[in-house]
Amino acid sequence: MNSRSLTLSLLAVALAASSLRAEEGMWTFDNLPTKKISEKYGWAPDQAWLDHVRLASLRFPGGSGSFVSKDGLVLTNHHVGRGWIQRVSSKEADYVKNGFAATTREQEIKVPGLELMTLVAMDNITERLAKAVKADLPEQEALKARETEIEKIKKAMQEKSGLTCEHVTLYQGGEHWIYGYKKHSDVRLVFAPEMQIAFFGGDPDNFTFPRHNLDFTLFRVYENGQPYQPKDFLRWTQSDLKAGDLTFVTGHPGRTNRQDTVAQMTFSRDFAIPLRLKGLERRKAAMVEYAKLSPEAGRQVNTQIFGIENGIKAVTGQLSGLKDRSAMARIEAAEQDLRAKVAKDPKLAGFGDSWSRIEKATQVAKGLAKESLNVGTASSTLLGYGLTLVRIADEEALPSEKRLPEYSDANLKSQKTRLGVPSPFYQEQEIFMFTKGLEDAARELGADHLFVKAMLGGKPAAEVAKAAVTGSRLSDPAARKALLEGGKKAIAESTDPMIVLARKLDPIGRELRRKQEDQVTSVIAEHGTRIAKARFAVYGKNTYPDATFTLRLSYGAVAEYPANGTLIQPFTTFGGLFDRYDSWGGNAAKAHEGAWTLPQRWVDKRSALNPSLPFNFAHKVDIIGGNSGSPVIDRKGELVGLIFDGNIESLPGNYFYDEAVNRGVSVDARAIVHSLDKVYGAAGLVAELTGK
Amino acid sequence: MNSRSLTLSLLAVALAASSLRAEEGMWTFDNLPTKKISEKYGWAPDQAWLDHVRLASLRFPGGSGSFVSKDGLVLTNHHVGRGWIQRVSSKEADYVKNGFAATTREQEIKVPGLELMTLVAMDNITERLAKAVKADLPEQEALKARETEIEKIKKAMQEKSGLTCEHVTLYQGGEHWIYGYKKHSDVRLVFAPEMQIAFFGGDPDNFTFPRHNLDFTLFRVYENGQPYQPKDFLRWTQSDLKAGDLTFVTGHPGRTNRQDTVAQMTFSRDFAIPLRLKGLERRKAAMVEYAKLSPEAGRQVNTQIFGIENGIKAVTGQLSGLKDRSAMARIEAAEQDLRAKVAKDPKLAGFGDSWSRIEKATQVAKGLAKESLNVGTASSTLLGYGLTLVRIADEEALPSEKRLPEYSDANLKSQKTRLGVPSPFYQEQEIFMFTKGLEDAARELGADHLFVKAMLGGKPAAEVAKAAVTGSRLSDPAARKALLEGGKKAIAESTDPMIVLARKLDPIGRELRRKQEDQVTSVIAEHGTRIAKARFAVYGKNTYPDATFTLRLSYGAVAEYPANGTLIQPFTTFGGLFDRYDSWGGNAAKAHEGAWTLPQRWVDKRSALNPSLPFNFAHKVDIIGGNSGSPVIDRKGELVGLIFDGNIESLPGNYFYDEAVNRGVSVDARAIVHSLDKVYGAAGLVAELTGK
Repeated sequence: MNSRSLTLSLLAVALAASSLRAEEGMWTFDNLPTKKISEKYGWAPDQAWLDHVRLASLRFPGGSGSFVSKDGLVLTNHHVGRGWIQRVSSKEADYVKNGFAATTREQEIKVPGLELMTLVAMDNITERLAKAVKADLPEQEALKARETEIEKIKKAMQEKSGLTCEHVTLYQGGEHWIYGYKKHSDVRLVFAPEMQIAFFGGDPDNFTFPRHNLDFTLFRVYENGQPYQPKDFLRWTQSDLKAGDLTFVTGHPGRTNRQDTVAQMTFSRDFAIPLRLKGLERRKAAMVEYAKLSPEAGRQVNTQIFGIENGIKAVTGQLSGLKDRSAMARIEAAEQDLRAKVAKDPKLAGFGDSWSRIEKATQVAKGLAKESLNVGTASSTLLGYGLTLVRIADEEALPSEKRLPEYSDANLKSQKTRLGVPSPFYQEQEIFMFTKGLEDAARELGADHLFVKAMLGGKPAAEVAKAAVTGSRLSDPAARKALLEGGKKAIAESTDPMIVLARKLDPIGRELRRKQEDQVTSVIAEHGTRIAKARFAVYGKNTYPDATFTLRLSYGAVAEYPANGTLIQPFTTFGGLFDRYDSWGGNAAKAHEGAWTLPQRWVDKRSALNPSLPFNFAHKVDIIGGNSGSPVIDRKGELVGLIFDGNIESLPGNYFYDEAVNRGVSVDARAIVHSLDKVYGAAGLVAELTGK
Repeated sequence: MNSRSLTLSLLAVALAASSLRAEEGMWTFDNLPTKKISEKYGWAPDQAWLDHVRLASLRFPGGSGSFVSKDGLVLTNHHVGRGWIQRVSSKEADYVKNGFAATTREQEIKVPGLELMTLVAMDNITERLAKAVKADLPEQEALKARETEIEKIKKAMQEKSGLTCEHVTLYQGGEHWIYGYKKHSDVRLVFAPEMQIAFFGGDPDNFTFPRHNLDFTLFRVYENGQPYQPKDFLRWTQSDLKAGDLTFVTGHPGRTNRQDTVAQMTFSRDFAIPLRLKGLERRKAAMVEYAKLSPEAGRQVNTQIFGIENGIKAVTGQLSGLKDRSAMARIEAAEQDLRAKVAKDPKLAGFGDSWSRIEKATQVAKGLAKESLNVGTASSTLLGYGLTLVRIADEEALPSEKRLPEYSDANLKSQKTRLGVPSPFYQEQEIFMFTKGLEDAARELGADHLFVKAMLGGKPAAEVAKAAVTGSRLSDPAARKALLEGGKKAIAESTDPMIVLARKLDPIGRELRRKQEDQVTSVIAEHGTRIAKARFAVYGKNTYPDATFTLRLSYGAVAEYPANGTLIQPFTTFGGLFDRYDSWGGNAAKAHEGAWTLPQRWVDKRSALNPSLPFNFAHKVDIIGGNSGSPVIDRKGELVGLIFDGNIESLPGNYFYDEAVNRGVSVDARAIVHSLDKVYGAAGLVAELTGK
């Protein structure tokens, strides 16, 4: 096996520069590789098919979804809807834990603040921008001229169409577009299964396959108080999806780093990611130590420990990709090919420098890394509140675009909301974690570092932490609210020890950010854009842009893959769900914090379920975070599944796509209907979805 | 996760020299770590328990088994019994494929040649040997004196006890024992499930977990025409085995290389195993090429290709162990510790040299490796027959101990049998494979090598292969038999082209073997023994000897393990079996050569089966090939399962034991009874096994 994969890899290296891998790509709707799809699968979408699925697709905040009935039913993941389900829950009615099912339209619950977007117009403004911005302008002026022109075009389009318009940069600046969205603002919760079946297997199974998650939720869009009737919605399949069948996914992949230079990837692999892992491990170790103090301490932090372990799992998965020698060889070969072509093309003179400029910026980043990791709120929740309060007071006075990005108009409201919401607070834990955070910083940065001196003032970390935590009132939402409303003056005069510390931390943190911005971020942004432009000039549009949380289409077959010494099956089944339940001892054993327990309803209804029916499936589709909730569509344009994750082998997808093992993981459409029917008795919804 | 395992490994290195890992060890019955077991599990076996399970345990040819009823029922793996089931099958009654169930004693089928052994006496003769062999004898004479004394003791014990006695070398010569066995020669087949459920998942799932194999067979021992009544047999459990429960395994691990020196392991890792993999890959590539010639060609070799892939999987698994840096660091630390202690101890002067002597021998082995791989029968079955005939003619004239080991009295009969048995022969395939084999040898060794010249005589490989294959009559068992019976003269006079080639090959092959024996094998054997003696002198008996296909006991809990990004469940279930069946499309789809299809009887009886019942399980027990068929026993001395494999992570077990991921894989005792009851309606057997 070893030697066989080696052969494959060498072949891949040879082909690298010239062609993408079979199912690779998160394609924009104006540029689909229809010829390639057709050659491999004997069929490719036409314009009508594409328009239909695009208009049936929806953007959720942080995720994706789709219209699935003529009366505006919307399908997305439970984990995409979770925050919104939480928002309409109460102590008495915990819909996240217990699920929710409206049996009449009247019972559907309006979700305040939830807005969904349909992409209805796409306007390529690259040429217009190029014309508007004179070639010989100095950099800063060019930037400003471009921004002004973009605003102008956007505003005009918005006024003319009535759409919500957004500027979209593709190919790192190779193309500029305005996307126009129809916004749906009256969205109501219709159905949610219990969290425990939506997230069956919990943190251990997260990011893996075989999987058994009923990770779906149904909302409904209303307009003028009536269910909205979308012209385009995805019909529910009546066919049986099989291994080898071609699937399509429309959704909003959030971010990829596939156009990073080899220097950036090497920096990530050898430095940035290991450092991040070190930070996570340090935080985890502190929590594990705290958890050992008492059962109550353990209860407080167990969930957080699992959360950190999941973060470690995700980051380790990405890192494993960067350590994959054959993949990296392919990436290096592609970079060499591009650099050689750029070097040969006199029109691209001046672009050749960018690779080394980026490499130098990563060297600077290395020098700043220790401070980046340690200058901050030192694991203190209260100091976090304090810093937010101090900064809002300053930032609010500035125009949105001049503020730190997390305080821009788009984000300010949620920052303020967070300050007003009560959340569990454990004083002992806070003192413990803050002490650890300060000790770590002192050890890593040295006693003479500005930040360490500012925080500790020569005292032991434990003393400082205890005094600040016990002396602060910031654990009380009312106290935070009072400071927020008191504005700049209240902050300046406050003697709350956490505000005092935050006032000292603020300028040190800002100075560090400024250095990073000037010497690292802006250099990488500028030269990344130049390289992208060069790539665009050399290869044109025969590839897809890095993910930008805008609508894309991916495609590929339902397929097994090799792992764990054997072949991983393409489907899981209801029988497999109960196998995983039984084999861990079920609800009686509650193994691993109950990861594989089931809602009682599922245990009761077990005999009514068809064990052979597919539950989840794996398919060769190039997706990433943000694609959650994406519909899986067949050739007929019908809904066959719902993306909710990738397998562990998909984590390197941030950097490259490997069709041998990278798989998207979806809920099978049959599992949704069968569960609604047999477990939840939701006959009305089944009829609306399937017409039966 | 990464960093966490690193911490564990560093800790392990620190502890390496002083202590074994928790569940490590294939322990002899005279030397169990009862204190350690008791400390960890709060209970350890006493002498009565040990005697009982030892006397209930059986040795099969190449495997293990146990008595499981008062009327002499014997439980082992289907794959241990397979050859014997085959032997009593016929074209009309294929018991391997279709299974077998005797419903009366009369229907039980006597299996000719099958002998089972119970270990009833163990005599440590180390001291007696030491006394019998004077310390100052020259090496050769000492060897002879030792052998003579061993024969004498063995014979005396055999005569006195009436047992079958065998000399056993433990700790590479640190201890010598005579083991006395009661031999059972009337063994009858009682029950065998269909191969397809015994080996469900086929080659892909082989060596892996989660697993769903009903890998058991029942035989019965008779004495004087009546069912044998063993005083000791394992009662069938009435309890429910759970995760965390302590299990014991008695059986006959065949071979481990844990006492190899670091130089030997490095040689295996960097040279011997890669070379072996290269050979396997070459053979596979040739078969794949041949398979492409026609559907019929594919049919002929598909099974062999799977077999080779399984070999590659096993060897790659072992290699991955040797590439495990933390494990190798542990092994290196242990070797350094021993070498330092040897160096300090004046009584051990003269032992210190052995490590470098072995290292030098591995250098010689490197020089001979290319020839070892290429001088031989060059993938020709007929040349293989030819060489066997040529060698039998010569070897038979010698006393057994002077012959090449594969022609000793113990092996000669099966060599002759093989020559007389017809087996499928495909002329085109034979020509194709022989051509490839000769081409490979010519390319690797060069045209001037003695072997290449002898085989090709300057002609192209394809021509030589075609002439020899089409001209030979050795594909006919009658022709082989005639040559065998014709003896030395017939061989010398034969003009069959394969006999002609074999006569040329024979001396070249012998010369190469002699070189290897003199310069590599004997050096490693001698100095391996010296190191073992030194180890024994330094550490005494606080460890276990390498596996020797003699009775051992292993122990450890039923336990999950981390793999595939999550935790692998400790049990599988009947529901999981059908999940794996359904998810590959079942008998209709026959995915991957039907690896996950089921006998029709299982499909028909599905609704009668309890999906929640355990099927297979994983446990922390240190086992290896030869343990197949071993009973899994609980504290009460009752049978709770049946070992049939290890997980993919257990393959490095040849070199070291890693309790974090190495797991034995067993059939759950409940699955055997439930299947006998619900699928096969074998009420009589269920009653005999369980008393119900």
